[in-house]
Amino acid sequence: MKERDSIAQLILASLVLAACAAALTALARGEEADDSSPIFGVKIPAGYRGWELIAPSHEAGGFNELRGILGNAVAMKAYRERTLPFPDGAILAKLAWKQEPSTEFDGAFVPGRATTVQIMVKDSKKYASTGGWGFGRFIDGKPVDRAQHETCFGCHQAHVKDHDLVFTRFVQ
Amino acid sequence: MKERDSIAQLILASLVLAACAAALTALARGEEADDSSPIFGVKIPAGYRGWELIAPSHEAGGFNELRGILGNAVAMKAYRERTLPFPDGAILAKLAWKQEPSTEFDGAFVPGRATTVQIMVKDSKKYASTGGWGFGRFIDGKPVDRAQHETCFGCHQAHVKDHDLVFTRFVQ
Repeated sequence: MKERDSIAQLILASLVLAACAAALTALARGEEADDSSPIFGVKIPAGYRGWELIAPSHEAGGFNELRGILGNAVAMKAYRERTLPFPDGAILAKLAWKQEPSTEFDGAFVPGRATTVQIMVKDSKKYASTGGWGFGRFIDGKPVDRAQHETCFGCHQAHVKDHDLVFTRFVQ
Repeated sequence: MKERDSIAQLILASLVLAACAAALTALARGEEADDSSPIFGVKIPAGYRGWELIAPSHEAGGFNELRGILGNAVAMKAYRERTLPFPDGAILAKLAWKQEPSTEFDGAFVPGRATTVQIMVKDSKKYASTGGWGFGRFIDGKPVDRAQHETCFGCHQAHVKDHDLVFTRFVQ
């Protein structure tokens, strides 16, 4: 009986150890894979790639990017009804790619490598100190650093404070 | 009784005339407002502006346009599953705008005036002689002339015959 008890204790100890290891691994993973933006805690929203197009844009110079700015249903309704400020729940997603000359059609430029995904989330209470908007800038699905996120609000405030801090206009 | 008959006949004649006038007006309207493309009979599909973005693009030179190429659900499924050729029912819509410098952000370019909407409809039987695709090019909702539509298939065939005559690639 004594030997059997020892074996049982050994098995129990092993199980506890295994459980602890799993828990610690999960914790560590959770910290490493924090996919929320600094300051704002904004994540890339599920299903954003299927949202409607608000407008395309082009950024010349160093960026040399083509962009597609998409909006969720709340944002699109606000655009179509010309509702300003945007209501809580509106989310905008700016997808950017390096602009490359088409190899198939002279004079045409097409998206190359994906560069950033940038998200704006409207929550007038949570983000009251930044005009009601939370910002997130992501490269390969990971948020960029805090310093970059410190520039979002100031820039939007400086350039488009009369359009609820939103650059992109809806085009038919 | 005779006078009453005359009045009744007059009313009847008036009604017939009014009906004829309405019918003729409708006919004339129908001819004027034919919104189908020459050769292919392609129309601008309902709800296309809400379709998903396949990719943005930029056309330099004389066009100087920003474009957003959208796809209906059949087309998007084919893109995501890398299905080639595209299945019947796939529809692509290319929306084009003049590219203008942003007045709000140096180096950025945004859509200005809408120029064309171009539609490709996959129907392998109906359009068997043009690679299964029907084409429509529209300005202000009206199809452009026959001569322009005569160039669609040849150009797509010359440049992208290995991608089922479709220029635009899906970008994540």
